[in-house]
Amino acid sequence: MLLLIPGPVQTRPETRAAMAQDIAPWDNDFRPVYAEIREMVRDIAGGVPGEHATMPLQGCGHFILEAAIRTFVPAGGTVLVPHNGAYADRAIRLATEAGRQVVSMPCPDTEGVSPAAIGAALAANPSISHVVMVHNETGSGIINDPGAVGPVVRAAGRRMILDSVSAFGALPFALAAHPEVDALVFTSGKCLEALPGSGYAVARTDRLLDCAGNAGSWSFDLSDIYQQALRAGWGSIRFTPAVQSLAAFRVALDFFMAEGGQPARLARYRENARILHEGVRSLGLTPYLDWAHQGPVIVTVHQPADPAFALQPFVDALKRRGVLISNFYNTRAPSFRVGCIGAIGPEDMRQAVAAIGGALDELGVRDRAARMPAAA
Amino acid sequence: MLLLIPGPVQTRPETRAAMAQDIAPWDNDFRPVYAEIREMVRDIAGGVPGEHATMPLQGCGHFILEAAIRTFVPAGGTVLVPHNGAYADRAIRLATEAGRQVVSMPCPDTEGVSPAAIGAALAANPSISHVVMVHNETGSGIINDPGAVGPVVRAAGRRMILDSVSAFGALPFALAAHPEVDALVFTSGKCLEALPGSGYAVARTDRLLDCAGNAGSWSFDLSDIYQQALRAGWGSIRFTPAVQSLAAFRVALDFFMAEGGQPARLARYRENARILHEGVRSLGLTPYLDWAHQGPVIVTVHQPADPAFALQPFVDALKRRGVLISNFYNTRAPSFRVGCIGAIGPEDMRQAVAAIGGALDELGVRDRAARMPAAA
Repeated sequence: MLLLIPGPVQTRPETRAAMAQDIAPWDNDFRPVYAEIREMVRDIAGGVPGEHATMPLQGCGHFILEAAIRTFVPAGGTVLVPHNGAYADRAIRLATEAGRQVVSMPCPDTEGVSPAAIGAALAANPSISHVVMVHNETGSGIINDPGAVGPVVRAAGRRMILDSVSAFGALPFALAAHPEVDALVFTSGKCLEALPGSGYAVARTDRLLDCAGNAGSWSFDLSDIYQQALRAGWGSIRFTPAVQSLAAFRVALDFFMAEGGQPARLARYRENARILHEGVRSLGLTPYLDWAHQGPVIVTVHQPADPAFALQPFVDALKRRGVLISNFYNTRAPSFRVGCIGAIGPEDMRQAVAAIGGALDELGVRDRAARMPAAA
Repeated sequence: MLLLIPGPVQTRPETRAAMAQDIAPWDNDFRPVYAEIREMVRDIAGGVPGEHATMPLQGCGHFILEAAIRTFVPAGGTVLVPHNGAYADRAIRLATEAGRQVVSMPCPDTEGVSPAAIGAALAANPSISHVVMVHNETGSGIINDPGAVGPVVRAAGRRMILDSVSAFGALPFALAAHPEVDALVFTSGKCLEALPGSGYAVARTDRLLDCAGNAGSWSFDLSDIYQQALRAGWGSIRFTPAVQSLAAFRVALDFFMAEGGQPARLARYRENARILHEGVRSLGLTPYLDWAHQGPVIVTVHQPADPAFALQPFVDALKRRGVLISNFYNTRAPSFRVGCIGAIGPEDMRQAVAAIGGALDELGVRDRAARMPAAA
């Protein structure tokens, strides 16, 4: 079965084999593994030793994003969230329920956010301390470019938290060039091709110390995780982790380096996306995004108008052909989404396109023009 | 290697083999697995269908305990924490940082909390809404008995949150007989002999609905997890889980049932504890607890007075003999702790006792009387 949901993503057999062992997280034999993960991840983020450090956190992407917001934005503080997809929705809810004020900036969900619009929103509201931005919207596949938005945030004297859950390791970004970024957050189960169980923030060490006491949650206090590492060492783990997924992540990081790091991974994913984007068009379908706005992580496709199409039967027909995609969508118009990330390559993408064609034929889907959303 | 840290615990090969697979958490083939875990766990907790439900949460024991406190105790509300071990310390910190008031009730760390003392503390402070109690202190090995404390809490018209992380599945307890308990919390990686990655609360459904809006954290809102299950079904997972550990947990639950459930597991662990407790005494060591107060989860032992003893070299010497224990302690007096839980039996315990004897001999530890803590 080809896992294209994404993620969790398709992993390499060597990576998932590391899951099937009992491990003592605080044992001296495991501590170097954990310390190496922290260093390798900081380096992939383009962080500077001493200036940036990796804070691992048990759980999922939502948890590490909530932790970053709580740690770097004081209670009652105000964040700006450019709002062009489902993961921005979630950032808004996470920040709001954590007692932070949110200024939501609605944008079309078919292109990246405009840096000028961010600049205008910051100028209009001096109480905004941070921009919380989703790097890659896993719903639609669009990219918000921190390389373009960051300088605007910096010029306005504000700070940024970058939700890079589904982009990290594939899209280029270097913390060293972005002093306005307090934290970059991601998980092990996306473009780094490991298994789920932990989130990570690579954060500025000066800010981690400045922000002690902000979090209002011991569990989600990244400053406390940093201070625990200073006291007990970088191999020390605060609370019981999903330790098997850490062992697998360490294996996956070696494959990442061996492949050639972020540029090589981006090239592979871009080729995957190109084959998919072309392939679905050749089947008469309409991708959700123009190629100019299409990121390399996920290709989202409009559901075809033909009444013979329904999402779950389509997913089931694909599964019978060895391809597993999500059985839900979270774009504004009805869609299905196909991942381009994981331990997969061009042949897998061609197999996916063939499976999509076969599934549409099996369901008798002839009118493949985009289905428009029902009127509200 | 025998993992007696505990936990993560020693698992069965069949359980950990389930970790080494890629899984789509929202796929229709996985949803029944997740739904079954929720039902089986509710039944092990002695919950009543409709009255109690299982709320899984990504992460560790600290996270699920913080989530239960946030969900059932409103911001600014007051909890009583009987304080007789390291995990009570942690409950105090979790509640305090989450903005709840804590009344700490210090007790000796060598026996279970007195129900009469709880009653007196509740009578003295009408603002206390909840008792947060640790079922089994994994530092010392003592048990706080909810069967004795619960009726006192109920009679006082207050409520309880039971941190059963290292007790659940081994110590007898039934939610059906304890209407005062809002939630019982635990993880998969202790007495249920699975691998870490998720916490669980089995909670009253009426209280979950009453407490909507309390949490001040979307991530840690058990009421939201409940309402999501009502909307989307019990096989629906909120946020990406450490899904491999869920698959392994399902396997471990079958072994739990096949063994004979909680009574059989308790009997095995009690016999493990008896062999250890007798064994360390036969080596001239002093267990931290009298047998009358000794729980079946962990046997904690006073460090010997001989200056030849140091914890890390002792742990290393044990490891060379195939036995892995914790390289830290969190009792008030210096100790080392040996787990009795996991997929282990009497032969393993005899091996552990022999390894302890061999390690002490290797280090030249002759004076094995209890080392007393340095004066403060």
